[in-house]
Amino acid sequence: MSNIHPDEQLCDLQLDGLFIIQKKKGFKFGTDAVMLSDFAKSQKSKRTLDLCTGSGIIPLLLSAKTATPEICGIEIQPEISDMAKRSVEYNGLLDRIHITEGDAKDAVSLWGRASFDTVTCNPPYTEAGRGLKNTTDTKLISRHEILISLEDIIRISTELLVPRGGFFMVHRPSRLADIICLMRQYKLEPKTIRFVSPSYDKAPNLVLVHGIKNAGRELKVLPTAFVFDADGNYTGELNLIYNRRQRSE
Amino acid sequence: MSNIHPDEQLCDLQLDGLFIIQKKKGFKFGTDAVMLSDFAKSQKSKRTLDLCTGSGIIPLLLSAKTATPEICGIEIQPEISDMAKRSVEYNGLLDRIHITEGDAKDAVSLWGRASFDTVTCNPPYTEAGRGLKNTTDTKLISRHEILISLEDIIRISTELLVPRGGFFMVHRPSRLADIICLMRQYKLEPKTIRFVSPSYDKAPNLVLVHGIKNAGRELKVLPTAFVFDADGNYTGELNLIYNRRQRSE
Repeated sequence: MSNIHPDEQLCDLQLDGLFIIQKKKGFKFGTDAVMLSDFAKSQKSKRTLDLCTGSGIIPLLLSAKTATPEICGIEIQPEISDMAKRSVEYNGLLDRIHITEGDAKDAVSLWGRASFDTVTCNPPYTEAGRGLKNTTDTKLISRHEILISLEDIIRISTELLVPRGGFFMVHRPSRLADIICLMRQYKLEPKTIRFVSPSYDKAPNLVLVHGIKNAGRELKVLPTAFVFDADGNYTGELNLIYNRRQRSE
Repeated sequence: MSNIHPDEQLCDLQLDGLFIIQKKKGFKFGTDAVMLSDFAKSQKSKRTLDLCTGSGIIPLLLSAKTATPEICGIEIQPEISDMAKRSVEYNGLLDRIHITEGDAKDAVSLWGRASFDTVTCNPPYTEAGRGLKNTTDTKLISRHEILISLEDIIRISTELLVPRGGFFMVHRPSRLADIICLMRQYKLEPKTIRFVSPSYDKAPNLVLVHGIKNAGRELKVLPTAFVFDADGNYTGELNLIYNRRQRSE
């Protein structure tokens, strides 16, 4: 099962000796997954679920960045889910990370209500109906809201979380109004947001959102995370997030 | 009427030779008013209303930064409203700026629905019930939601605006979730936001919000405006906003 298929490659995560299997020509993890795992690492959690886990990048990074004993991931595409399972096995993490092939919309019936204290998600960013669609293309399924909508993700996350449980998501800033309104509607109060910008003078291209189930109303906007400094080098913070082998505890 | 009272002082706005009368010991205009007028200046407008206008700083700045022929302002505190009127007269702008003493909650009955194409507001930031209250203290009335709530401001603004009219507000980032949810609720769709941070590594302390009545859903988050650069000097943009005598048209 740990075999790496001919159309796949092994990528060194440069973190605790972890590797991940990815498609050579498919959707690859990016800054968004790395930033999300870093954003979510401060949450003490006994059981975390990563919705739309894809290649399992978030569970793998969280296994190194946190002491969470059980990290689950669910992925609807059989081929990608199988790849994630083989990555977990390759890293010897079958005791901590459990990948399930299935539809995130069935997560509540699979695990039950209030069964996680943390839910993470790096969902498809583009609304269905915008741009091209091809419901069999794995890259498109990873990028477009074809099989799951933003509202589905927020509704499901609230149901899966214990009261005061934490939700962590990365998304496009253009959807921030939708995200905030839906989170409040489903009692997943937005508590912290952090933007990620390529550089000081550029608009953010990612937003990290942290919500707490049933929490009171007050939003904290953190300092923006900049990828590059004024000289075009990675900022100290980005180097730290990408390279340093550290646990938050 | 243009007399300056003993407890007042004249402040040079360093913009088109404008001056403003302010209380020596009262609430003074700050970066928020300057940033808001700059944020709103790109909107072509025939008739603009500034809610909670205070000393009239926003109408005065907009008179220099835009070609808007009629700029109205409403202020509930008689003493402050009188001071704003004297500032307008002092600057010879009685033909363009009209200050009304009154409650912003009565603005719709005063001017009628759909009577403005732009509404601006630099409202009290702190929710009533939080912190101290003294309903006769002019400084506190300017800072706390004692006489008007965020929801009042958004509801009134929508009613006052023509379809596709623009709403511009400056507020605290901690209220962003409330602002976005209320704006969407009242069909004043949030279209553009811009954060203002003291410096690159600091959290924003202000957020500028632009909404369009009855617009479609898609939010643009602009690059953050930084007040100071890494060396502690005003950034080029802030110098431009504060000092350069320019019209947007």
